[in-house]
Amino acid sequence: MDDSVPQVPDSHRHLLEQPMIAHVATVRADGAPQSSPMWFGWDGERVRLTHTRTRQKFRNLQAEPRIALSIADPADSQRYLELRGVVETVEDDSGGGFYRQLRRRYGVDPDAPMPDAAVRVVLVVRPVALLARSPASAAGPPSIERVTAGGSKVVRP
Amino acid sequence: MDDSVPQVPDSHRHLLEQPMIAHVATVRADGAPQSSPMWFGWDGERVRLTHTRTRQKFRNLQAEPRIALSIADPADSQRYLELRGVVETVEDDSGGGFYRQLRRRYGVDPDAPMPDAAVRVVLVVRPVALLARSPASAAGPPSIERVTAGGSKVVRP
Repeated sequence: MDDSVPQVPDSHRHLLEQPMIAHVATVRADGAPQSSPMWFGWDGERVRLTHTRTRQKFRNLQAEPRIALSIADPADSQRYLELRGVVETVEDDSGGGFYRQLRRRYGVDPDAPMPDAAVRVVLVVRPVALLARSPASAAGPPSIERVTAGGSKVVRP
Repeated sequence: MDDSVPQVPDSHRHLLEQPMIAHVATVRADGAPQSSPMWFGWDGERVRLTHTRTRQKFRNLQAEPRIALSIADPADSQRYLELRGVVETVEDDSGGGFYRQLRRRYGVDPDAPMPDAAVRVVLVVRPVALLARSPASAAGPPSIERVTAGGSKVVRP
């Protein structure tokens, strides 16, 4: 186990373990933010995204490796997880093996055409901080729990 | 009609007109991106977000007013809209009138408690560019249409 990554609260682990849509924020060369929905993989410690060497977001991330993902629970959008982290490594995925794994996870035919297989990469994201937002309940008002490798605390309400 | 804002493609208008969840990317003071799911309003030209004067994202946006929102179609996440824009004005919403409107739009009791009503604001976002991603279909492979006030073009594939 990697002690340098924050532990995901039990209440929000399903958002990473299930094939949800993550909205991925990066910073462009001119300093403006960019956001796009993406599939992801999760091994309990790292997030993996499929991408290509030829797109804008890849160039953004080479210049600024910090990244943020937010994932809302489709059953209740007031429950969500924001994961702030850094692209730690970029792995070659020429041939698209990892992309096919993700297609399987998301219920898409893994053998559908993949015209850009030759330039595929895996972006490996190390989480630095998690913000786990829970909706109001009988237990109290909405809250946000902030988790880092050092521990966790409720930052709001 | 404001000619300075891009026209939303028919294929993606429902993502703004219906009460979807937008994931909002901003840039923090230290240059890192931040992402969080938010409700929004849409009048055909501007996006409106409810927020407070006291939170981190508000401070982020005062320093860097550029913002990006992405909205995925719950029926098919391969169809999505990214809206890049700028926070044009911040309107006072003390009392929370706009927040109550949004609660109504999203099917939440408008008169639920609102402890921070005194510091509520409306962030008015002027779109600068739209990226409308369509899934593969009988008509062809997936595509991204980029729309600005000057017109539109297919940027991918």
